[in-house]
Amino acid sequence: MTKRTRSARRTSASSQTAFASPYIQRKLPFFDVLTEEEMCRIDEQVDWMLENVGVAFRDDPVALDIWRKAGVTPTGPHGDLIKADAQWIRSLVAKAPSQFTQHSRNPERSVVIGGTNQVFAPIYGAPFVRDLHGGRRYATFDDFEKLLKLSYMHPNLHHTGLVIAEPTDIPVSKRHLDMVFAHLVLNDKPHLGAITEKSRAQDSVDMVEVMFGKKTMDEQVCIMANVNTNSPLLVDRVVTEAIQVYSGRGQAMVVTPFILTGAMGPVSTAASVAQAITETMMCCAFAQIIRPGAPFVMGNFLSSMSLKSGAPTFGMPEPVMSNYAIGQMARRLGLPLRCGGSLTASKIEDSQSAYESADSMHSTMLAGSNFTLHAAGWLEGGLSTGFEKLIMDADRLGSYQKVLSVGLETDDNAFARDAYEEVEPGGHFLGSAHTMRNYQDIFYEPHLSDSENVESWEDAGAKDMRARAYDRWNDMLDNYQAPPIDEAKKEELVDFVARRKSELPDAWY
Amino acid sequence: MTKRTRSARRTSASSQTAFASPYIQRKLPFFDVLTEEEMCRIDEQVDWMLENVGVAFRDDPVALDIWRKAGVTPTGPHGDLIKADAQWIRSLVAKAPSQFTQHSRNPERSVVIGGTNQVFAPIYGAPFVRDLHGGRRYATFDDFEKLLKLSYMHPNLHHTGLVIAEPTDIPVSKRHLDMVFAHLVLNDKPHLGAITEKSRAQDSVDMVEVMFGKKTMDEQVCIMANVNTNSPLLVDRVVTEAIQVYSGRGQAMVVTPFILTGAMGPVSTAASVAQAITETMMCCAFAQIIRPGAPFVMGNFLSSMSLKSGAPTFGMPEPVMSNYAIGQMARRLGLPLRCGGSLTASKIEDSQSAYESADSMHSTMLAGSNFTLHAAGWLEGGLSTGFEKLIMDADRLGSYQKVLSVGLETDDNAFARDAYEEVEPGGHFLGSAHTMRNYQDIFYEPHLSDSENVESWEDAGAKDMRARAYDRWNDMLDNYQAPPIDEAKKEELVDFVARRKSELPDAWY
Repeated sequence: MTKRTRSARRTSASSQTAFASPYIQRKLPFFDVLTEEEMCRIDEQVDWMLENVGVAFRDDPVALDIWRKAGVTPTGPHGDLIKADAQWIRSLVAKAPSQFTQHSRNPERSVVIGGTNQVFAPIYGAPFVRDLHGGRRYATFDDFEKLLKLSYMHPNLHHTGLVIAEPTDIPVSKRHLDMVFAHLVLNDKPHLGAITEKSRAQDSVDMVEVMFGKKTMDEQVCIMANVNTNSPLLVDRVVTEAIQVYSGRGQAMVVTPFILTGAMGPVSTAASVAQAITETMMCCAFAQIIRPGAPFVMGNFLSSMSLKSGAPTFGMPEPVMSNYAIGQMARRLGLPLRCGGSLTASKIEDSQSAYESADSMHSTMLAGSNFTLHAAGWLEGGLSTGFEKLIMDADRLGSYQKVLSVGLETDDNAFARDAYEEVEPGGHFLGSAHTMRNYQDIFYEPHLSDSENVESWEDAGAKDMRARAYDRWNDMLDNYQAPPIDEAKKEELVDFVARRKSELPDAWY
Repeated sequence: MTKRTRSARRTSASSQTAFASPYIQRKLPFFDVLTEEEMCRIDEQVDWMLENVGVAFRDDPVALDIWRKAGVTPTGPHGDLIKADAQWIRSLVAKAPSQFTQHSRNPERSVVIGGTNQVFAPIYGAPFVRDLHGGRRYATFDDFEKLLKLSYMHPNLHHTGLVIAEPTDIPVSKRHLDMVFAHLVLNDKPHLGAITEKSRAQDSVDMVEVMFGKKTMDEQVCIMANVNTNSPLLVDRVVTEAIQVYSGRGQAMVVTPFILTGAMGPVSTAASVAQAITETMMCCAFAQIIRPGAPFVMGNFLSSMSLKSGAPTFGMPEPVMSNYAIGQMARRLGLPLRCGGSLTASKIEDSQSAYESADSMHSTMLAGSNFTLHAAGWLEGGLSTGFEKLIMDADRLGSYQKVLSVGLETDDNAFARDAYEEVEPGGHFLGSAHTMRNYQDIFYEPHLSDSENVESWEDAGAKDMRARAYDRWNDMLDNYQAPPIDEAKKEELVDFVARRKSELPDAWY
């Protein structure tokens, strides 16, 4: 890396690039892989499952009462299986908006979720972190804060998610308070709230209400939460209580079946896609019963597995196809979609990690995923957040952002007829007026790809992308500046966290 | 890597996997990124260029005579600029078949090029090779033979190209004889012929005629060749003579503008795409004048550049968009397409290499590239062939092959209704009859992705994908067996090569 390049990188690390945008407004057409007949077959399977197979709502009597009041009698050996008329479920799902705005405390960073809009957020939920020099270790709150600052600073991430890594040095019972506080204070991009217990979900909503005020919370989406179903066809209390808290307050829910096809769903992709749609539709209907019009994102997290070991595999053709198919089905349903991400089974940031992440994310972005959790940082099947992986994935997201938001320009300037008056056959366009007019913002300029010749690259230390990513995230953290905040609100949040921490026991599970 | 895994890999290295196929017959729909209006605008630009800008056919008086006899008078300062009525050029282009079969000496390996068929071939033309332990060095014939054997053995490569690496230890004047001989003898997949000089093109055609016989050569495509134009808007004698030799004999030509947008084309993607179409249409028309119906592949190799250094960049959003756009334009024209590949500017097989290659190749395959040169092995902007890169890219090609040829199955078996009678909510499908019936060939099983947990991976030596690829290509070469060959024909080829070598001087340029 030359001195000039280093200094250029240092500058851009702290500033937003010209390409930064609070979210992607897609111009690129969608990629439809299914025929009308194939979509009808998937719909028929979903309807059959809604009516004949059902979804169990387990361990939450309140949820079953909500279904009973809506006219559905739970059945099955545990008395918790919800089967319902498919047209009625579809009519409930139709009450959810096809797009909504998640407001941020900095209005310039609010995101629109749904329709032709696409939002990228980092990995969620890894108990471990890995970096080039520190290796793999349990994540701490210090790691979490660093990852949050990087997600806040990176121009290609539009949303900071929540558990970018699990702060395992803080009791589970109190962890959510520190995480939500950090997202609200160190960052001004939109983020998620906690879901692991009803009171933690409520704490998250209450903290966001401190920041936004009751009136705004009454009228707008200021927080969103993501839960996984217990596929196949089971939702537990974590899901139903989160929906009660968030949807009940008019805030947004993402419900995501995690289906390893062959384990949590049948071994075929179409069946697992239909099952995922069934599970999310049933949860969306439940949310609409609680509060008609509650914003709801259909999640889908489908993966294949190794036949040698049964281990999940990522970036493979089956999840690639599931992304394309679910994208089309979500548009048909009119629900915002979460799917995919930059996913890999690799333990480190090697070629496997990048090949798998790129195929996974290329299909995720083309599929039209409206909210993409795990768009950066995911390693080791989601067990580990990579510091270099976060920065490398995010660098690639800029390329996807350009593909989606620009597509192919075909205006008169794009056809450059004047340039052909200047340039001879066999000549070059480097100095043509058209090039001079356009070159400065015509290409996506990645930070971490080295395109120099081999001699320059060797002279600069022959650093691979991982080593360059290590330099870059350290540079970025050196340049971190917290966004401005209303100090009174911050104090109120500090008091809230202190009070709740004093009320809660230290629990590590 | 466990013992069991190693032995499983060793077996499969020498055998073809169940997924092997001589070429891909695509079921996946195409991805159309352009509206009808946008396609018309590109067509208008192409027509304007054909009629008003023109393409220079330089340093080949024979080519200019061919144009004159067809009624076109060359113009311009060099008297070699061909401008022609666009409708006439389009009517000539329409004579080229939309698909054709390139026959191989083993009929099971013949490929169909065009339409919904897709064929993957290795990198072409790198003067250097790199492997994990040998580092970067000038390529030798020994390297070339090893790379050819690997391309022959790999089930996900359907065609062996030609110059997988330049055998720089053989004089340039004789190199083509050894390369074509090796492709014909060590391999029974289809391949390309030489183009660097008219006599070398003729030698290639003559050698293939020894193998196939005159009658077959009269009637069928047994060899194909690839040339680059000298963009912008110039074709030199290498191009026009190759077309005279190959098209004149009814064999197939690929003509590929290499356009670094901003240098060999205007700095906008749409203009460079239109220019590439103009250049290839003019060459296709030239081929059709020589022999109406001559098989012709429209090539496109478009890349962006670094604003810091002017160096070519790969896997970026601009070439991704150009792949999608040219795919649609080629289908509109009814010409088979060559575009893209697994391209990168990285010097080694690191994350950059894999991210860029995957985005480049994902778009190449979705775009419907019918013949993809550089589908595996490309490093360093094409200057170097990576042994590990070849094997890693080829492993990923299996995933693309499945996406394209299978898509999403939606028959009754795919919906697995019987499985839901067996599995409880929250249960698992691992032992269900549907899983047992289908699991063995339902997932693409890559060879080089490690999906084990971190402990198993560390116990096995914590090898990254590059190290596993090194092991695999060495294993594969240990298991190489030459395909059966007609010994009389082989002797005839030996004699041909010996005779031509005795006639030719040793020339190193």
